[in-house]
Amino acid sequence: MSYFTEENSEAAVINRLGDDVDPRFRQIMESAVKHLHGFVKEVEPTMDEWFQAIQFLTATGKMCDDKRQEWILASDTLGVSMLVDAINHRRPDGATENTVLGPFHVSGAPVRALGENICLDGKGAPCVVSGTVTDENGAPIAGAKVDVWQTNDEGFYDVQQPGVQPDMNMRGLFTTDESGHYHYTTVKPLPYSIPTDGPVGELLVAMGRHAMRPAHIHYIVSAPGYETLVTHIFPKGDPYLDSDAVFGVKESLIVDFVDEGGSTSARFDVKLKKVG
Amino acid sequence: MSYFTEENSEAAVINRLGDDVDPRFRQIMESAVKHLHGFVKEVEPTMDEWFQAIQFLTATGKMCDDKRQEWILASDTLGVSMLVDAINHRRPDGATENTVLGPFHVSGAPVRALGENICLDGKGAPCVVSGTVTDENGAPIAGAKVDVWQTNDEGFYDVQQPGVQPDMNMRGLFTTDESGHYHYTTVKPLPYSIPTDGPVGELLVAMGRHAMRPAHIHYIVSAPGYETLVTHIFPKGDPYLDSDAVFGVKESLIVDFVDEGGSTSARFDVKLKKVG
Repeated sequence: MSYFTEENSEAAVINRLGDDVDPRFRQIMESAVKHLHGFVKEVEPTMDEWFQAIQFLTATGKMCDDKRQEWILASDTLGVSMLVDAINHRRPDGATENTVLGPFHVSGAPVRALGENICLDGKGAPCVVSGTVTDENGAPIAGAKVDVWQTNDEGFYDVQQPGVQPDMNMRGLFTTDESGHYHYTTVKPLPYSIPTDGPVGELLVAMGRHAMRPAHIHYIVSAPGYETLVTHIFPKGDPYLDSDAVFGVKESLIVDFVDEGGSTSARFDVKLKKVG
Repeated sequence: MSYFTEENSEAAVINRLGDDVDPRFRQIMESAVKHLHGFVKEVEPTMDEWFQAIQFLTATGKMCDDKRQEWILASDTLGVSMLVDAINHRRPDGATENTVLGPFHVSGAPVRALGENICLDGKGAPCVVSGTVTDENGAPIAGAKVDVWQTNDEGFYDVQQPGVQPDMNMRGLFTTDESGHYHYTTVKPLPYSIPTDGPVGELLVAMGRHAMRPAHIHYIVSAPGYETLVTHIFPKGDPYLDSDAVFGVKESLIVDFVDEGGSTSARFDVKLKKVG
């Protein structure tokens, strides 16, 4: 029997795993212990630094409630959410790329006819977004569901301003027509800041980073037989495309919002990947 | 400009660190991001597994209050506390080895004369512990402070049973005499379980591990000009020496508790390392 030492620390912990541990859980814990100890050995934290880490971990959990998930925010701002999303949504070239869901999706958005306006507060110039939903080969998918949501013209989601914005403002569930086409009316979205009043906000400051996300419209596109696509579109030219606080931008999701003189228009075609 | 991809994920996050970031904090965050992303890439968590991790991280913070530090318990049970302790207390051969402080130290333990009994509840057979405090070469250190604490004969610390145990039960601050000698009376300590009613308890179950610590007496030994020693002694033969839930056991800290017929005795000599 050898006791725990600085040298054998990973093995000392991993060897303690029971014989009957679920194999997948074993794999996860072995890797977690290896990387956790690897990190500690690499940076050699002082006792004070270790305790600062304990305090960050504790405060991040304490910030969470039914409306705020600071740990997801931590995962987002460290690129972990995007990495997990990427690993789980590898798509062939040509299929539209995924990005993170974010915390502001609401189930049961209003079902709307094509062309209807999701902007219920009357603020902002109209913007018409249109496109087609097809399979990877360009064959139209009729009856696909296009669930969209975004901030209003003041940069807030409806759920961030209950009682201020109309219920379900800037949300709509559309259905593609026989040719796979959809279109809806909205306003051009705005950049906004993720919440900065918690430990993650302090972490961003310490890392010398801002908390802004580029403007975007969220999409969930689904159709039977196809992988559900969770993504955003981002207006070309947004000042935060290169520095999205949650690393959500992909080149293929940047869309030209064309000035039509008093209104704007944008086009976003979606290619879904067949299941399997 | 290249956007975040699965392949470049570490660099995408690390490159975002500002130019004016504190160099030590930069080193810590670069290593943290590298190992965090390395872990995610190695295990490829599903979206559900990632969310289970978020829930564990959240619940562990929520379990913490002014009497319970579940994140330190997580650090302890994953061997991180012992690793940080080892890194910060590398000592030359011959100097007494450190182990973790644990959560039950109390400042201001009663100052006692050599030989006095720290057992205030009258439970358990007497046990006399004695030894000398010297430097690395065996030269006695007079006036060294020996702060000891342990569970009572029912396996609980006084602070775990307020109103049940006498205040400051099983705690005492002794001072070595001219020959560097100390001795005190106590009871032989008992193995006990770390708290299992939180997320760390669930984690231990999932890992197929028990929550027991071998019996031990805590020590903090200090003297001007020497590195303060934080350690435990463990009775030889304890059934949990090989499986301490917090990995605190070191071979050199296992001590023979000798049965004297109705009482026990133990000897623990301490060698302190000179500062610098």
